[in-house]
Order: sequence, then structure tokens, then C-alpha cells
Amino acid sequence: MLASYFRETVRRMQGYTPGEQPPPGSRVLKLNTNENPYPPSPQVAAALRELDPELLRLYPSPLADEARAVIAALHRCHEHEVLCGNGSDDLLTIVTRSFVEPGALILSFTPSYLLYETLAQIQGARFVALPFDGNWAPPEASDLYRQASLVFLANPNSPSGTLVSPERIAALAAQLRCPLVVDEAYADFAGTSCVPLVRKHPNIVVVRTLSKSYSLAGIRFGYLIARSDLVDGLVRVKDSYNCDAVAIRVATAALRDQEHMKKNMARIRRTRERVRQALASLGFVTTESHTNFLWCVDGPVPPSTWARRLRRHGILVRHLDYGTYGDGVRITIGTDQQMDHFLQATRQIVTEGEACR
Amino acid sequence: MLASYFRETVRRMQGYTPGEQPPPGSRVLKLNTNENPYPPSPQVAAALRELDPELLRLYPSPLADEARAVIAALHRCHEHEVLCGNGSDDLLTIVTRSFVEPGALILSFTPSYLLYETLAQIQGARFVALPFDGNWAPPEASDLYRQASLVFLANPNSPSGTLVSPERIAALAAQLRCPLVVDEAYADFAGTSCVPLVRKHPNIVVVRTLSKSYSLAGIRFGYLIARSDLVDGLVRVKDSYNCDAVAIRVATAALRDQEHMKKNMARIRRTRERVRQALASLGFVTTESHTNFLWCVDGPVPPSTWARRLRRHGILVRHLDYGTYGDGVRITIGTDQQMDHFLQATRQIVTEGEACR
Repeated sequence: MLASYFRETVRRMQGYTPGEQPPPGSRVLKLNTNENPYPPSPQVAAALRELDPELLRLYPSPLADEARAVIAALHRCHEHEVLCGNGSDDLLTIVTRSFVEPGALILSFTPSYLLYETLAQIQGARFVALPFDGNWAPPEASDLYRQASLVFLANPNSPSGTLVSPERIAALAAQLRCPLVVDEAYADFAGTSCVPLVRKHPNIVVVRTLSKSYSLAGIRFGYLIARSDLVDGLVRVKDSYNCDAVAIRVATAALRDQEHMKKNMARIRRTRERVRQALASLGFVTTESHTNFLWCVDGPVPPSTWARRLRRHGILVRHLDYGTYGDGVRITIGTDQQMDHFLQATRQIVTEGEACR
Repeated sequence: MLASYFRETVRRMQGYTPGEQPPPGSRVLKLNTNENPYPPSPQVAAALRELDPELLRLYPSPLADEARAVIAALHRCHEHEVLCGNGSDDLLTIVTRSFVEPGALILSFTPSYLLYETLAQIQGARFVALPFDGNWAPPEASDLYRQASLVFLANPNSPSGTLVSPERIAALAAQLRCPLVVDEAYADFAGTSCVPLVRKHPNIVVVRTLSKSYSLAGIRFGYLIARSDLVDGLVRVKDSYNCDAVAIRVATAALRDQEHMKKNMARIRRTRERVRQALASLGFVTTESHTNFLWCVDGPVPPSTWARRLRRHGILVRHLDYGTYGDGVRITIGTDQQMDHFLQATRQIVTEGEACR
């Protein structure tokens, strides 16, 4: 029981449980939180080496100007259409606090990123997650579309890895009376983005992170792109200096090296397809992934058993339980060598399972 | 006018305006946001040089374990009584979202840190700032003490630099039915702290930052100390990975070098006293400062004029207007050489002012 000082909604909620982060130096293969197995751009290491200590002593730019300029150039938009954050979670929090009155409705889809519900709980908002349709798309129509104060759509989605087309998202946006946050944490793996929709659809807010595709989960840097009249209001709600000066510098260096990022995207996609086929040959059914992970709900061993046994092999994957939808295992794609180790362990687990029958 | 998507409270508010951060390389003397003029500990530079790139690629420790251990040792408390944040502003936000229902009352004192009111506005809470008494202490009694859901007390206070004794703060805490946040952003300059009160007073939450005394405004790192049952609830409300991995590493290195920090505190205090006396000899009245800044509301030139004319000399100070209380100039203490430049400019401004009469 929490102290009575806490708001009722905080006392009732559990909070979001992030994936396990083993202490540094642990001898485990970490395939549980969708980190990129390849190091960030060499430009990042160079930026760190050349860091002016004055950067530490002085407050950072409140709007992360240096990074904002590079982001605007990258997406061919105006700097005033960009807001930077302390990871994309910071931006999802800012958006929730800006648009959602206590008691209002936040809408999302299921199964998806569990944090959306946590954000609704903290805000004292109602939360409904509509099941994705059979093609992993949002339902074509829903009475709730006109009632919501905010809609979250992860695209590509986690844990399924599936992708909804920009056309379908534009159609959804047109049905809403509220902002539609398209959480593009994995968009670089898919090569598809809703950023071009922002100009035409005043309610689309695209959120990006450098944690996955740029191998920078440690530095906490994300950004959003939306019309400047939305960005202007969101700025009022964010912390004054929400982005770290070192993170701004490092993010800027990483964003400038698109070639490095794209090379890693291609490598990870190749490995992912190989792993998908190998899992299929063992009888594991995965959804069509446009990301750096695979989602498996059906196979020769139940998801929870598989995850538990992999752990004994020193391999962490993410077992996620979505209640009525059911549970599954989400496997981050590592290097080829790491995935060979994972496949070998999985083969052994499957064989043991068969022997026990 | 903001888009209608925004909550009414966000549409009505202005947002907190941080002090001016001139772009890197600007030739100005920055005495406006209370940064430390001396570089951070050499241990910080060493930590950056030896940074393992894996730290960037992987998500950070959700609770900043490495820093938390050092903080607990430093304050002789348990790790479960420590919560780390992306600067102390992050912690002030978390505390507000955890304890304050929309419509509830946040209490503070005036003149003080203007962010407290902004946090109340974002939360949809009522905000009352009671005037400090003639000794710059909170009023001994107030009907509002039993009505508040959260009380903020900056100690030492900004902009006044004044200090309330821990005994007086303990007496205030005992009158409240809610958490009392003692914002100790400047406590290292005073050498007094309310951390020892936390064990006896279940509602005291002490907030610290590394921005000022540790010369680390750029990296965004702060922490709070409170009873573990409060920390447990606050964890539910914070972002999953609110602290940057590089910031955690840098903060840990800085916290380990207490000698460096204390040496800088002593230097700044000496310079502050010299500047205070020089200003007094020119007729400027300052409050008794226990911080790295001086607050001046009365002198031979009005505060707004003084600030504006200093700007022409390339010197930024903070002009703050507190409505009925009035306005004043807050001057950050820089190096001796910087303050000589400031005093020289001020003497010239005063002389010009006299010539104009």
C-alpha cells in the first residue's frame, strides 16, 4: 500500500515495467528490449572525444537547436515543426499531459506498447485499446474515434512488428477530432513514415527515437514532428531543459550519418529474415515483421516456457501477456552470431520438449 | 491562440520562460542562470574519456543504480530512499503528478522559483504563493497549510538566496497533511541540508541537482531523498528510463569528488562576499545570500534599467518581476575576473545615471 499522499490513480496503478536491464558486465545475450546489436556511428565516438567541457557546465539549448536543425533538414520540414525529447517516452508523456483532460478518453490498439495505458492512468484518463483487425490494422470505423482526446498508434507496431500503410493512417486521422500520435520508434527498419502526412493532416503527430535504429538507447533522445501550432503548445508543457547537452551533441552526430544507420538497418533485416525462416522450420509462427524483432505466439513450446528455458541458456527475450489476446515472445534481432546461439538454444529446447511428451 | 486540441489549462498558461541561453560561442558574460563558473571535476573528464560505447547502445539502468549507490553513501541513507531524475525539474514534475489531483492546492512562497506555478497550471491545480515573512521564512501559521496537497519550499531560496533553518522547516512539515518538497538546488553553497529530517518526517522530500554546485547544468541530473514508501510510488510515475546513461556515469564521477565541489563552493562564497560589499558601497541593497547569486531590489538605478544597461556591456543578469512584491536583479557569481568586469560596468552605469539626473 502506498502512502495516502499519493493520488488515487497512482495508488491503483502498477506502473510500466521496463524489460530487464542486467547490470553491466553480465554474461547474458540480451534480446529483450530491441536494442541495436551494432555500435552507433563512428561520428558519435568522435563527437564524444571532441566534447567541449563547457557543454557540461552550461545549461543546454531548451529546444535542442543543434539537433532540431539536422532533423528538419532530414525530414524536409521546418524547425518549428520539430520538438526534441528525453527519449520518445518523454514526448509521449508531454503529448498526454497537453491534450488529455482527466476523465477524457485515450484510445489505442491491442496488442501494442503497454506504456500508453500507464500514461492514461497517470493522467487520470480513461483508456480503451481496440483490437487490431485481422490484417493488424486499426478497425475501419469505431464510435470511439469521435470521442477520444488522443489516439496512440505504434507503427510499425510492437510487439507484432506489423505495419499499417500511411493511406490507412491518413483515413484514421480524418475520422478523429483529436491528435493521432504515430509512434514510429521502428520506422527506420520499415523504411516507411507518416512524416509526409503532417502538413496535410493537422492532427498527426509523428514520434521518433534514436534508441533503436541509431543504436543510442543509452543517451535518451527522441523527437516529434507535427504542425508548428501543436509544437508551440507542447513546448509549454515540457521541462525547460528536457534534453541533455551531451545527448544533443551525440544525437546530432548520429543523425548526420544516415549511411551508417541504413547499413545497419539492411544488416538487421537480413538477419531477421534468416531467423524467421529458421523458426518457421521449427514450427514457430511469427507475424510479418517490419522491425528489429520477431513476435511469436504459437510454436512447439508455449511462449512462457520458451522464454523461461532460454533464460537458463543465458538468453533474455521478452515474454508479454496481453490478457484476452494471449501471450507471446518478442525476440530482438541481434548479430548473426548471436542469433545462431539463440537458434541453437531454441532447437535444444524444442527437442527436450518433444522428448518429454 | 493554440489549437483547440489542447487542454484548457495549457491554452491559458504561458509556460515557464527559462533564462536566456545564448548560442555557443557568443561573446557574453553569462550571469543569468546560476551556472558554476568553474569546470566540473577532472574525474568527469576522465569518465567521459573512458566511456564504454556499449553504454550508448544499451538502455540505461531504470533507477540509475550506479549513481544511486554513491548518493546513498554520501547522504548516509538507503538506496531505496533515493530517486534520480533528468535534472531536478524532472523530479519536481514527477512529484506534482504523483501527489496533486486536478483542482487540488499547491502551496509555495513568494518570491521564489516561478516553475512551481507552471507545474500547478499543467496539473490543473490551484496555486497559492504565500509571501515570505520579514525574515524570509514561511509564515508560522496559515489556514492553507492543512488544505494543500503539495508544498514547495526552495531552500536556500531563489531569487533571494536566503536560508530557512531545518528546525523551522521541520515545524512547517509537522503542520502539513501533504508532502513538503524542500528544493535544495543551492544547498551545497549553504552547507545546510534537510536530508537528515527525512527519517523523522515522513512527508519531507528533499530535491537536489548537480547543475549548480557540481558545474553540470548540461548533463541534466538531479536526485531526491525521501522515505522509501514515497520513492516506491514516485517510480511508477517517472518515465521508464528517465536518466541518460552518460549522465549517470558523469554524475557518479562528480559526486565521488566531493573535494572538488567543496573547493569551488568556498571560492564562490569568497567572491560573492567581495561583490556584495562592492555593490553595497555603490548603494545596492542585497539580501543575505547562501547561494551562488545575489538578489538586489534597491539601488542607485532601477533593476530593469540596470539589467538592460548591463546587456549593452555584454553582461547577462536575470531581471525578475514578481508583481505586487516588485522586481529585482539576480546576479550569478562568476570568477573573480568576471565579477570585476561586472562591477566595472555597474560603476559606469551608476555614474552615467548620476550624470543624467
